[in-house]
Amino acid sequence: MTDETRGTQITAVGNEMSASFLAAKKRSDATEAEIEANPGKFTMLTGDRPTGRLHLGHYFGTIRERVAMQNKGVHTNIIIADYQVITDRDTTEHIQDNVLNLVLDYLAAGIDPKKTMIYTHSAVPAENQLMLPFLSLVTEAELHRNPTVKAEMEASGHALTGLLLTYPVHQACDILFCKGNVVPVGKDQLPHIELTRTIARRFNERYAKKNPVFPEPAAILSDAPEIPGLDGQKMSKSRGNSIVLSATAEETAKLIKKSRTDSERTITFDPVNRPEVSALLTTASLATGRAPEDIAAEIGDAGAGALKMYVIDSVNGFLAPHRERRAELAKDMDYVRDVLEDGNRRANAIAEATLDEVRCAMGMNY
Amino acid sequence: MTDETRGTQITAVGNEMSASFLAAKKRSDATEAEIEANPGKFTMLTGDRPTGRLHLGHYFGTIRERVAMQNKGVHTNIIIADYQVITDRDTTEHIQDNVLNLVLDYLAAGIDPKKTMIYTHSAVPAENQLMLPFLSLVTEAELHRNPTVKAEMEASGHALTGLLLTYPVHQACDILFCKGNVVPVGKDQLPHIELTRTIARRFNERYAKKNPVFPEPAAILSDAPEIPGLDGQKMSKSRGNSIVLSATAEETAKLIKKSRTDSERTITFDPVNRPEVSALLTTASLATGRAPEDIAAEIGDAGAGALKMYVIDSVNGFLAPHRERRAELAKDMDYVRDVLEDGNRRANAIAEATLDEVRCAMGMNY
Repeated sequence: MTDETRGTQITAVGNEMSASFLAAKKRSDATEAEIEANPGKFTMLTGDRPTGRLHLGHYFGTIRERVAMQNKGVHTNIIIADYQVITDRDTTEHIQDNVLNLVLDYLAAGIDPKKTMIYTHSAVPAENQLMLPFLSLVTEAELHRNPTVKAEMEASGHALTGLLLTYPVHQACDILFCKGNVVPVGKDQLPHIELTRTIARRFNERYAKKNPVFPEPAAILSDAPEIPGLDGQKMSKSRGNSIVLSATAEETAKLIKKSRTDSERTITFDPVNRPEVSALLTTASLATGRAPEDIAAEIGDAGAGALKMYVIDSVNGFLAPHRERRAELAKDMDYVRDVLEDGNRRANAIAEATLDEVRCAMGMNY
Repeated sequence: MTDETRGTQITAVGNEMSASFLAAKKRSDATEAEIEANPGKFTMLTGDRPTGRLHLGHYFGTIRERVAMQNKGVHTNIIIADYQVITDRDTTEHIQDNVLNLVLDYLAAGIDPKKTMIYTHSAVPAENQLMLPFLSLVTEAELHRNPTVKAEMEASGHALTGLLLTYPVHQACDILFCKGNVVPVGKDQLPHIELTRTIARRFNERYAKKNPVFPEPAAILSDAPEIPGLDGQKMSKSRGNSIVLSATAEETAKLIKKSRTDSERTITFDPVNRPEVSALLTTASLATGRAPEDIAAEIGDAGAGALKMYVIDSVNGFLAPHRERRAELAKDMDYVRDVLEDGNRRANAIAEATLDEVRCAMGMNY
């Protein structure tokens, strides 16, 4: 799961690598090897909160990976987590626009709705019902122990809502309703996957010893480097430091031109001491596939102006085909709505079948 | 809502009457007057956790009242709260048996399935989905402030589960999905109704200012006296001190015969100093409609044996027609299942319509 404020699937470069993280990385590598060998055995769940438009950070951090997984033959599911919009805010303003634009970007980026199921929380009641049995399987103390929930609550400047406290349980519903057995996550989301595994294990132990209903999903930790905003800070809508996929070439150029650099003329790649210049180099590096050091060397004394022109050309060049497909798709919004409706229909069928299994396991078939 | 462990609709006699309770009682009286004048304007929600069989406490505390409301013309709904079984226990053992026996007792007691909708939590996904938006409308601090949740957690000897912490929000779903505007409750459940009113108000304010989706339900505080178990303590399955409606006359006689009394021969009604004898008198009083003091005076020096015989005769006499109807109904369990299936079908139709309104109000119609 990924969005502006919530943990992305991107592992921080230079973060301390704890023993538990290294163990998780090792398991992740093993899972990736299994996926290569037998992609059809895996069902993957990823998603986004529809709080705004997808940007380059999303693209390189997760969307590209989803397309690759889909094309490998993994059963890929994308949830548009519309109820998670209100975990830490009091409004659903622009939600319809945000949701439809997400679908547009998925399709333009190469998500194939015949292979990948795209759906929204609010359209799948049988999935949401899993909240009830799942909430009974975790203690309040376990909910409180989740470090990401605390961090998000503090970042939001909003009181801890019942929904924010319990959203890791809702994520377990997202993953388990479709029997997801692999979830790409960022480091800060590992506790969520651990909770999902706990819920699956406890459910099976209590109610389905003989025929386990749920798999214990594995986490894949992305190898992608953290993609900074244009100012070297974390990408954020409020900072205006991210290049959204749906922007025009002109808007993108304008945004890059006004980005801050530093007073040193010679361009070098030095993320610690020169975060702004290095962020521009990283952006160009991702868009071109060249090493940021090589780009820096090429520009050298030509300075920030030349660097910005290079970034503008490389990003707009890279995004041109995406934007062209997006514009084409946007001419037929009925088709975009149909994609979502079809995904919701399929998600409901899967959720109802899983819920029936859950009811039977719990003896709730009267 | 009522069951062995959870707050019943019965107000404790002799409890301190706080100012807020007196205000609640005054509002309750006003609501009852409105119901008398215009019963068709009211939709009532009550329910039971299917953790065991209904007993005399339930009958006099709530079932009798539900039948009266139904017959007045109030839209009555009864939820069998099967997910609330697991708020404080790790098993759903015997749940099917408990659910079907609840339906049997409702029907035997005079609940008419043409007038009253009987349904289970687990069968109504669109109702359960309301948990998501509703959880966003309350803070964790508000959930913690609920005194009844704390008391129940302590009574259960079980860690506070996510489901027990959030069950007052689930009760709000029960009440609001059918636009319930009146809920009979015991004093200890007033905080739950207050939370439901808060959720309804906040939803309307945030998402539906022009066309409010939810009513703010009123609480009716029952006038019925607390009905003690045969030992003068709170009725409880584990204490074996309650007369279940489905017991045979012989089982009932046996239970009453072995109930403890005290060493004083003369029978008097004195709940504080003689709880066991007074509990027997209260039970006989409810079954016969006579004052407990009159029954005590009549038995006088004949002692506990004579009192027990009187209680046995009066309770078995009172329950005979209920048991006869129950036995008749139990011959056709397919009909009992049909009643539940029909209630679930109707509840789903209502829940789906309400959920559609909620989605539209929140802009979640894509």
